[in-house]
Amino acid sequence: MTSQSIQQLIEAFQLLPGVGPKTAERYAFYLVRTGNDEITEILDALNKVRASIVQCAQCFNFAEISPCEICSSPKRDKTIVCVVSHSADVVALEKTGSFNGVYHILGGTLNAIEGVRPEHLKIKELTARARQGVAKELIIALNADMEGETTSLYLVKLLQPLGIRLTRLARGLPMGSDIQYADELTLANALNDRKNLGGE
Amino acid sequence: MTSQSIQQLIEAFQLLPGVGPKTAERYAFYLVRTGNDEITEILDALNKVRASIVQCAQCFNFAEISPCEICSSPKRDKTIVCVVSHSADVVALEKTGSFNGVYHILGGTLNAIEGVRPEHLKIKELTARARQGVAKELIIALNADMEGETTSLYLVKLLQPLGIRLTRLARGLPMGSDIQYADELTLANALNDRKNLGGE
Repeated sequence: MTSQSIQQLIEAFQLLPGVGPKTAERYAFYLVRTGNDEITEILDALNKVRASIVQCAQCFNFAEISPCEICSSPKRDKTIVCVVSHSADVVALEKTGSFNGVYHILGGTLNAIEGVRPEHLKIKELTARARQGVAKELIIALNADMEGETTSLYLVKLLQPLGIRLTRLARGLPMGSDIQYADELTLANALNDRKNLGGE
Repeated sequence: MTSQSIQQLIEAFQLLPGVGPKTAERYAFYLVRTGNDEITEILDALNKVRASIVQCAQCFNFAEISPCEICSSPKRDKTIVCVVSHSADVVALEKTGSFNGVYHILGGTLNAIEGVRPEHLKIKELTARARQGVAKELIIALNADMEGETTSLYLVKLLQPLGIRLTRLARGLPMGSDIQYADELTLANALNDRKNLGGE
């Protein structure tokens, strides 16, 4: 016999991705046990997100203003557009500090099994953006998996006629990896994309 | 460059037990992406828990009233008290439908490394409760690990002089388990606590 409001919180936590009944129970009882400060902090953050987050009309990233800070920054190079599937990818790329262009968030990748078709992603908007002529290069920065590859191929076919430079992220050995334990595909990619270190 | 309010939500989720930056990021972006209904549901549940949950003055479980529904129910047997470490244990035991007594929640187990001493748990309250003379049996239902065993031993030493019947949960093979793969301690427990199936 769990109290009804704790039960409701356990069910609410199960809305989060990958959270099952046991994890939700752990979260709920932890919050009940540790008291109100933690609950207030999460409440405040949720309220703020609900009240302030909009989707940028240009890159479709989530932000507090539209166009977002990246799209409206005079310091960013508008001629290079990095095409990613999710907002979290933007976070990861921004953390590198190696990219000074702008983004275009597709909102997912093509997936025949889950029924994600081109019209469900911001592909029409990407073509329209490419046609405006500001972008000189599109970096297709999708995951190195089946769905990412399929989507990349689809985008290349669609965008090649526009004459914009299309690139993708490099493939090879991840840092800290051991050749002995690398999988065949990664090793094949690393061989094919090898770099000249000098000499002739 | 993540929006400040999303960043705040990512940090708030890291307050939850076992949630690191990556998982928190996943939760936050999921909620931002799927929209306001999910956020509202979690907000409502958190608000309700914050507003309505109190600790039962008798068993120290979290509930909407004190004494809680279990402690105040005329259908429950007040002479059998099941001593557990956390509220989540009550949920698990109640799900079995096999227990009709009442509970006493210690709030943890003794742990020298983490500095959890008897005065941090509801042990004084348990002794006081045992002295009242209503309880005829205390079931020490703590985890079958080091901390649980230590705490059980401590409680037995402390409570034995009161002349109340003290029991603990049975040890043996879990349902669906394979003798071949059972660990030695579990198998030893199962042997020692074996039950007579008939015959002499």
